[in-house]
Amino acid sequence: MTDQLLRRIVLLTQGNTEPITGKTAVSVLRYRPDEVVALLDSEEAGKTAGAVLHVGGETPIVATLDEAPSADTLMIGIAPSGGKIPPAWKPIILQAIGRGMNVVSGLHDFLVNDPDFVAAAKQQGVELVDVRKNNERDVSNLRDLRDDCVRIHTVGQDCCVGKMVVSLEIARTLNERGRDAKFIATGQTGILVEGDGCPIDCVVADFISGSTEKMILANQHHEFLVVEGQGSLAHPRYSGVTLGLLHGCVPHGMIMCYEAGRTAVHGMDHVPLQPLAHLVKVYEQMANLMGPSRVIGVGMNSRRLGPDEAEAEREKVSSELGLPVCDVFRHGADVLADAVLQLAPTLVG
Amino acid sequence: MTDQLLRRIVLLTQGNTEPITGKTAVSVLRYRPDEVVALLDSEEAGKTAGAVLHVGGETPIVATLDEAPSADTLMIGIAPSGGKIPPAWKPIILQAIGRGMNVVSGLHDFLVNDPDFVAAAKQQGVELVDVRKNNERDVSNLRDLRDDCVRIHTVGQDCCVGKMVVSLEIARTLNERGRDAKFIATGQTGILVEGDGCPIDCVVADFISGSTEKMILANQHHEFLVVEGQGSLAHPRYSGVTLGLLHGCVPHGMIMCYEAGRTAVHGMDHVPLQPLAHLVKVYEQMANLMGPSRVIGVGMNSRRLGPDEAEAEREKVSSELGLPVCDVFRHGADVLADAVLQLAPTLVG
Repeated sequence: MTDQLLRRIVLLTQGNTEPITGKTAVSVLRYRPDEVVALLDSEEAGKTAGAVLHVGGETPIVATLDEAPSADTLMIGIAPSGGKIPPAWKPIILQAIGRGMNVVSGLHDFLVNDPDFVAAAKQQGVELVDVRKNNERDVSNLRDLRDDCVRIHTVGQDCCVGKMVVSLEIARTLNERGRDAKFIATGQTGILVEGDGCPIDCVVADFISGSTEKMILANQHHEFLVVEGQGSLAHPRYSGVTLGLLHGCVPHGMIMCYEAGRTAVHGMDHVPLQPLAHLVKVYEQMANLMGPSRVIGVGMNSRRLGPDEAEAEREKVSSELGLPVCDVFRHGADVLADAVLQLAPTLVG
Repeated sequence: MTDQLLRRIVLLTQGNTEPITGKTAVSVLRYRPDEVVALLDSEEAGKTAGAVLHVGGETPIVATLDEAPSADTLMIGIAPSGGKIPPAWKPIILQAIGRGMNVVSGLHDFLVNDPDFVAAAKQQGVELVDVRKNNERDVSNLRDLRDDCVRIHTVGQDCCVGKMVVSLEIARTLNERGRDAKFIATGQTGILVEGDGCPIDCVVADFISGSTEKMILANQHHEFLVVEGQGSLAHPRYSGVTLGLLHGCVPHGMIMCYEAGRTAVHGMDHVPLQPLAHLVKVYEQMANLMGPSRVIGVGMNSRRLGPDEAEAEREKVSSELGLPVCDVFRHGADVLADAVLQLAPTLVG
C-alpha cells in the first residue's frame, strides 16, 4: 500500500449508507481506517459506521459537516451504476469546498467539469481530485509478459460481488507468508485504497487492454500480481470492460467471485445471472484466446447467509466446480493463496 | 445515407495510400465519390486513385494542396492502430487550415486538442471536426429491444477485414430489394460515409454497450438494422470494444467476416489468428449470454486471391462451416441478404 500523508476524510454517503452502492465508503473504512473521521448521511445520523455497515467501528455518521470540524477532505463514498453525482449532493459538495476541504471523487461525472465546483475550489484554494480522470492512449502488444511473475485475476458472475476485496485479501495473505505480491487496482475504490492503479472502466474503449498491460509490465519485478477484476463477461452493461481487462492482463490463473443467493444481475432484476459452472467455462475459453489460463478457486461473498448456510454453500460449490472456495471475511484467503502457490511452480519450474 | 451539402474533399493519405491503413480513404472514395477531388500523397503523386487503390477511378493523387485549389475540406484518410496523427502531417494540416480549408479527422488524437490547430482555425474561421469526439454516458438496459426489427451484426476474425463494407453492402442489397434496412455506423469511416453513428471505440469503456443500445432503440422503426462490427473477440487490443458492441446490439444474426490468406493478427505478426470455426463457436457463446443468436453467413475478403482461388476458398469455407459465403465485391451480397431474410420470419412470424 502506497503511503500518503494522512488525510482527515468525511465519506459522503447521503441516503446510500449500505454495502452495495456505498462500497467505496465500506472499502475506505476497511483499508484506510486511520483516515476516516466521519460518514455524512442525515438519514443515518447518530449511528456508527460499525452499526450500519459492519465495518468502521465507532466512526460516527453525522448529519452536517459542522459535526466534523477537523475534516480536510470530502470523499464521494458511493459507486452508483452510471457514475453520476446525485444532483442533491451538489450543495453538500459546495459547502465542503466553502469550508476549505479538498474533494475526492471516483465517479464518471468529473468534479472538474462542473464550473460551479471549479470556481468555488479556485476561490478557496482547495483541490478537486477525480480519480477516474485519465488520458490512456496505449494499445497492448502481447509481448514481454514474463512467466516468472504470476498473474492472478479476479473475475466475476456479476459486478459488486467483492472482486476487489478478494484481490486485496489474496495479496495480503501472500505477503503475510513472506511472498512478494502486489494488488493491481483497476477501479476507483481500489485506487483510493492502494494509492495507484488505473480506472479501467473510464479509459477510452480502444485502450482498455493497453492500459492494463502497461500496469503489468511496470510491476513484473513482483513475484505475484493480483489484478482486480471488473464487471462480468455476462454483464449487459460492462462486459466490454471485463474482456478488455482479461485480455490485457492475460492471467495465469483466475479466481471466480460471486455472491451467494443473488439470482439476477445487480440493478437489472429482469436479467438472470448465468450459472457459475457455465461462466467458468466462458472465462476459460475467452482467457485461452490469449494464453493458457484456468479458474483455480472461488471467492464466495456470503454476506446474506448465516454460518451454517455459508458452510453448506461452500461445500456445494466446491464439490460442483472441483475448486477451493472461501469467503475471505469468514474464512480468510488461505485456500485461495494456496491455489495461487500451487499454480506458480507449474509456470516457473 | 444521410444527405449533406457536397464538400470538395482532399483525402490525406501521405505515405499510406494502400487499402489497409488507408481504409478510410478507400471507403470515402467508394461511398462518397462525388465529394472527393484528390488524394494527397507525394510518394504516389501523378497516379490515380483507381490505379493505386482500385477504387476512385480517375481521382488524381497530388503532391501538394496547390494542385487542388477548389478543395474546401482536408479529410484524414487513414485509420492507424492507436489512432495517432503522424507528426509529419502537422505542417500539411496547418497548411490546409491556412488555405481556409475545414479539417475532418476520425483519429483518437483530436484536432481540437492541438493548440496550434485551434489557433490557426480560429484565425482562418474554419472548422476542425473530430468524428470520434463524443460524450457518451448511457449504460444499456437490455429492455425494449423489439423482435420485429431484425438486428444483424458483422463480426470478425480480426480488425481490418471488411466488416464495414459487408454491413453497407448487405443494407444496400436489402434496400434494393425493397426492404427497409439501415446501416448502423460504429466507426470513424462508417460515420463519415453514413453521416451518423457512434464511434464506439472512442467512448468511455463503461458505456460501450450503452451507446450501442441507444442507436438500436433510436432506429427500431426500420425493418432491418445492420450494425457494423469492430475488432474481434480474439484481438489482443480491441476485444473489449468488440464484446461491448456485441452485447449492446444483441444481434439476432451475425455475419462472420475474415480475410482469406491472413494468418496473423493485423499489425501483430507474433499473434496467430484463431480458426474461423472456433470463432463461430466463441461468438455464438458470447452473444447467447444476452439472447438467442447465431452466425448466419460469412463475408470473405478475397483481395489477395485470384478468381479460381477465391472460388475454391469460398467452397471450402462454406462446406466447413455449413454457411453461405461470399466476397461482396466479387459476388455481391445476395447470399448474405438471403440469409438475413430467411432469419427474419423465424423472429416476427
